[in-house]
Amino acid sequence: INSKLPTVGTTIFTVMSKLAADHQAINLSQGFPDYGTDEKLIAAINQAMKDGFNQYAPMAGYLPLREQIAEKIENFYNAKYDPETEITITAGGTQAIFTAINTFITAGDEVIIFEPAYDCYAPTIKLLGGLVKPFELQAPDYKVDWEMVKKLFSANTKMIIINSPHNPTGSILRKEDIDALIKLTKDTDILIISDEVYEHIIFDGEQHQSVALYAELAERSFIVASFGKLLHTTGWKMGYCLAPAKLMAEFRKIHQFNVFSVNTPMQVGIANYLKSSNIYLEIPVFFQQKRDFFQQLLKETKFDLLPCKGSYFQCVSYSNIIDEKDTEFAKKLVTDFGVAAIPVSAFYTKNIDHKILRFCFAKENSTLEKAVEKLTKL
Amino acid sequence: INSKLPTVGTTIFTVMSKLAADHQAINLSQGFPDYGTDEKLIAAINQAMKDGFNQYAPMAGYLPLREQIAEKIENFYNAKYDPETEITITAGGTQAIFTAINTFITAGDEVIIFEPAYDCYAPTIKLLGGLVKPFELQAPDYKVDWEMVKKLFSANTKMIIINSPHNPTGSILRKEDIDALIKLTKDTDILIISDEVYEHIIFDGEQHQSVALYAELAERSFIVASFGKLLHTTGWKMGYCLAPAKLMAEFRKIHQFNVFSVNTPMQVGIANYLKSSNIYLEIPVFFQQKRDFFQQLLKETKFDLLPCKGSYFQCVSYSNIIDEKDTEFAKKLVTDFGVAAIPVSAFYTKNIDHKILRFCFAKENSTLEKAVEKLTKL
Ligand SMILES: CSCCC(=O)C(=O)O
Ligand SMILES: CSCCC(=O)C(=O)O
Repeated sequence: INSKLPTVGTTIFTVMSKLAADHQAINLSQGFPDYGTDEKLIAAINQAMKDGFNQYAPMAGYLPLREQIAEKIENFYNAKYDPETEITITAGGTQAIFTAINTFITAGDEVIIFEPAYDCYAPTIKLLGGLVKPFELQAPDYKVDWEMVKKLFSANTKMIIINSPHNPTGSILRKEDIDALIKLTKDTDILIISDEVYEHIIFDGEQHQSVALYAELAERSFIVASFGKLLHTTGWKMGYCLAPAKLMAEFRKIHQFNVFSVNTPMQVGIANYLKSSNIYLEIPVFFQQKRDFFQQLLKETKFDLLPCKGSYFQCVSYSNIIDEKDTEFAKKLVTDFGVAAIPVSAFYTKNIDHKILRFCFAKENSTLEKAVEKLTKL
Repeated sequence: INSKLPTVGTTIFTVMSKLAADHQAINLSQGFPDYGTDEKLIAAINQAMKDGFNQYAPMAGYLPLREQIAEKIENFYNAKYDPETEITITAGGTQAIFTAINTFITAGDEVIIFEPAYDCYAPTIKLLGGLVKPFELQAPDYKVDWEMVKKLFSANTKMIIINSPHNPTGSILRKEDIDALIKLTKDTDILIISDEVYEHIIFDGEQHQSVALYAELAERSFIVASFGKLLHTTGWKMGYCLAPAKLMAEFRKIHQFNVFSVNTPMQVGIANYLKSSNIYLEIPVFFQQKRDFFQQLLKETKFDLLPCKGSYFQCVSYSNIIDEKDTEFAKKLVTDFGVAAIPVSAFYTKNIDHKILRFCFAKENSTLEKAVEKLTKL
């Protein structure tokens, strides 16, 4: 029996989190909070279960939740998405991305991604017989050179996956980036997946440039969002996808045979919680404080900090500390120093190693302090 | 942009449940309970959230839950599945089936299914460019004629999907069926998906013939199970897949990029609940009472009852009542009589209509009474 994905191993997140656990290291690798969840949110889920919301949700999702998403999108991005036909609740952002790629990619189709890239894009494309066309972003600011991106275009270019705020680098796309992308794809049928799971984690007064803000692009785009990132509950696996009705109809054809529907009490509880919560306003402030605190601490180490404009990831270069592969160095950091990070080479399809590590700062201040104390021993 | 699934519409379950809601009909169509969930189970989920189990579970699932599954499989089917490498928690049975089909099916591969069949198999096969080879089961007992099945074999036969207890017919596979299947596939590489989501809903003292009981077959099989059916919580979307390590490794390669992992507090809560529950013993008794009660009531109607040996579905023939397409008759039953059922033609890839309806009896006795009262007006 032939494997469809012969080169795929276990994701780096699983590998590093396990290594961290095995060595009781402080885990700043996989992106998840180590602090508690709002008690009111937990109470809302509990209430939904008690109220009997324990059977299949509608395939596209609990309607009041979809309506609230529509309202948010209108408030934030001044765009209208019809809850009935253009919004679907998913079992996390990853399921939305997997399903959106599955919707249209077939053998021979080319998909442009920006590397370093979140590690689920490339294998999903390959699974379908598609070809990954990586565009390599350059440290320290990882800006996109759109004229160079154009050179990757071919008659087979079917899709472009963008991601802002960007995992793993913490860079963001600005208005001029989206304008350039619009210009580049204007008279084409190229589809866009816009992975916006960190949309509310953006700093220094920057405005998240959701594709939803740009009607010309949105009409060809799947936008992916995450409640896990918004609500500090990555393990609940709740997200959603937005797309114009024509694209969403195809998305749902696959969604309904993949997961059929998504956890009902979680949907109901989140919908009720969001009604009386200021979370959208609190989140950027909360994480900017974390970022500032962590960056301040890291100045005591030998690492060179890269800019972080969004997401809950801080990248650092260690090229002036040691000349070692990032996968090796990341392991040593766990075993010898007790801190787990993600080697950024894991985010490239080719074997590219710029000696950069990614730390997750969605952690208690005390966790960040303890971690950096260990890192100063380097 | 071309649709990959041009002929796929909304699933019959969504269509009928919506029609039922629109007409305030009694909904015996989509398979889900209308009664409450054990308070202890809800409390266990709530406790897991309060205990901080709100971040990513391990990709393959919360280990204590996988260990409990292994223990159950050993107790019930005398088979050993390694929790580390052979058991994966999924976002419901459907996600397990979708992922298992994705694991190995590629363009041109043939998959044998038994029709009427649960409606997710065929589109998932087609999505991958596979060919569906339906074997048509015959009412009233829907027994498999394995010699005839053999005629569907070709050099391209890659997989067979079996399902016992069977949705929609309530028939079950017996030891002689599994023996025949083993004989038929002995010197082949043909893979099996065994959809056993109703494994504990089996009547009249029959023993569920899990593929896990048959090592020769299990070594080539994905077995799919469902907590939603076991715990009366179809909306929690919790299930699992069993397979030998070699197959499971391929399953997980796709699982990790599809959903990555599954709702953590639900996994933890279910694991804790199962520790002190007799649910495995209670479930068959509970549903046998429902079946007997429902069958007794239905005798007052003009329907002819088909046998029901397992699952929570009762099929009936109406061919002696009216000569009408089952989709039309099912609609009329909602609009004119206030009861929703599933037209069994929806479970065939070809346009086959034997004038049979499927009723779900996972309902309060009072619901069943009210429904049958309406059906006696026919
Ligand atoms: C799905 S596990 C990975 C979590 C995450 O988004 C990350 O660490 O990049
Ligand atoms: C996933 S919705 C369908 C529920 C079900 O299993 C059925 O009604 O057959």
